[in-house]
Amino acid sequence: MRHEHGGNIYAKKCDIDFSSNINPLGMSENIKKAFINSFDMSVFYPDPECTELRKKLSLKEKVDFDNIICSNGAAELIFAICFALKPKKALLASPCFAEYEQALNACGCNIERYVLKEENNFSFDDGFLNKITNDIDIVFFTNPNNPTGVLANAEFVEKLANRCLKTNTIIVFDECFLDFVLNGENCSAKRFLSNKNIIILKAFTKFYAMPGIRLGYGLFADYNTALKVRSAMQTWSVSTPAQMAGIAALDDEKEYERTVEYIENEKKYIISHISNLAYKVFGHSANFIFFKEIKDFDKKMLEKGILIRSCKNYYSLDGSFYRIAVKSRDCNEKLIQAWTEVKRG
Amino acid sequence: MRHEHGGNIYAKKCDIDFSSNINPLGMSENIKKAFINSFDMSVFYPDPECTELRKKLSLKEKVDFDNIICSNGAAELIFAICFALKPKKALLASPCFAEYEQALNACGCNIERYVLKEENNFSFDDGFLNKITNDIDIVFFTNPNNPTGVLANAEFVEKLANRCLKTNTIIVFDECFLDFVLNGENCSAKRFLSNKNIIILKAFTKFYAMPGIRLGYGLFADYNTALKVRSAMQTWSVSTPAQMAGIAALDDEKEYERTVEYIENEKKYIISHISNLAYKVFGHSANFIFFKEIKDFDKKMLEKGILIRSCKNYYSLDGSFYRIAVKSRDCNEKLIQAWTEVKRG
Repeated sequence: MRHEHGGNIYAKKCDIDFSSNINPLGMSENIKKAFINSFDMSVFYPDPECTELRKKLSLKEKVDFDNIICSNGAAELIFAICFALKPKKALLASPCFAEYEQALNACGCNIERYVLKEENNFSFDDGFLNKITNDIDIVFFTNPNNPTGVLANAEFVEKLANRCLKTNTIIVFDECFLDFVLNGENCSAKRFLSNKNIIILKAFTKFYAMPGIRLGYGLFADYNTALKVRSAMQTWSVSTPAQMAGIAALDDEKEYERTVEYIENEKKYIISHISNLAYKVFGHSANFIFFKEIKDFDKKMLEKGILIRSCKNYYSLDGSFYRIAVKSRDCNEKLIQAWTEVKRG
Repeated sequence: MRHEHGGNIYAKKCDIDFSSNINPLGMSENIKKAFINSFDMSVFYPDPECTELRKKLSLKEKVDFDNIICSNGAAELIFAICFALKPKKALLASPCFAEYEQALNACGCNIERYVLKEENNFSFDDGFLNKITNDIDIVFFTNPNNPTGVLANAEFVEKLANRCLKTNTIIVFDECFLDFVLNGENCSAKRFLSNKNIIILKAFTKFYAMPGIRLGYGLFADYNTALKVRSAMQTWSVSTPAQMAGIAALDDEKEYERTVEYIENEKKYIISHISNLAYKVFGHSANFIFFKEIKDFDKKMLEKGILIRSCKNYYSLDGSFYRIAVKSRDCNEKLIQAWTEVKRG
């Protein structure tokens, strides 16, 4: 059975979607213009090399053009990495993003899990590092983690990179939410890209608020690994609208500079109101908040038009954990109001 | 090395692209409207189930909703089929669409080839059927074939379906160009969809002229095979713009009814002019023409701004074979003029 993710507004009708973690600033006017202009270009095949987009990403990320692969959302790369590198044994933290497991299952890889504990606030510790042994071929590591919202600090990222180098393990750092973290760049694995076994995943999906358009990319420490992964993907996986919208987004970064401050502000606002309402609030280092609440809290919120993410379909979590996105003030007000009403009973 | 396809206008600048086989009628106004409207919906994740699109396809194709998979172009399905079904030995006609080979290589499958012969005008014959033995796990069969433009008739399709049933071989009928063929539906493998081992690939790419938007689909005779293939794909492989444009295209089929007549007319026009110019004209059952010409004909045409498809990077073809799309009258006139000038020397 396919894992059900947040953001499925098609299966669960709602007024406001708090279940997917998208930048509340939305897409800029320039992205919209580029998208509309892409229509006339869409009677041609897309550029299979994503040349212009990768040139811009190369400048932004300070990574060689040839070591960057663009994809139909970061999720496509997760599958391509698994099919191309054919790992036999993987380590995942639990809970984590469900596409890793789907992709690892699809390529027939065994999965070891390191269960993050509620009593430790779902934080990472050396126990995770110790699980990385010579027989582990690949680790997927999300920083900050999703759905828990816990950030691994620079020191832990360094230990993880070193450990995987020693055990000859491919380590995929999924940094799709790191741009939302205050001073998050300090915790990026980018400074270890001289280690050949590192892949970093990033997406336009969340930060530039374009999940429907599908655009992600990978930074590969090793060019040959990049080639191998690319060869497990079709020729034209990134659409013309996605390429043109992505180029516009990178040209428009100034528009998005206020994102982190905006999110920090709104996050404080939400937390100040829910700390007395929620059973317990856990991690919230990115643009979403992980918390514990009463049974069927999601159903009760949906009755009020608010879709939140129940985390009960994550391995190792039960029905008492939930995740919400940080959205714009008017949405956040409605969230708090509905929450108050639900808890009032 | 990645195979270079036609339509790469990014690597080869030109005035008119005859190297990719796209409906010259282009995208309709309603598709454009749907595309532009899809922008506001693209701040949400796409529907992972492509529910509305698949409902419409189910009605159009008379195939169960559950047996249809939509994809990021038909090319994504080719890779997903290979990764999901893990064939050990495949049979391909040669020449054929290069993505089959790329996908089969990526999943580690051995490839047997049946070389189509120039002296037989690249037609299919029983020799191809005889190559399908019990050890062949999968056959990719394009009808009409690309780049040769040769149509396999209803009788041959039936023999092929029966043969693969007997040898327990998965047969993928790629019918991406069949909608362009006069009375093409007679040659579709759809009437054999009761055979569990059949998959039919189709695309919006060519007929609705939206290669940049990326939308294809597969009709699966067997529901469990469909499930398996879907599980080798990411959750959100079909973008919101693609889903909305695809729905509009299906609502707008009347606009495209004149396609076959239009193509037939223009094809006659081109052939009547080139039959004295070209070394030899081969298959042209769909919206493209396969022919033999002088060495470097593509380079000489490109000097005049006309990009055509050199077929020299196909296995079993040398540099004397080329392919052109059938386009609109004004483009076709320019093609013939350039051709005349090149041959005049």
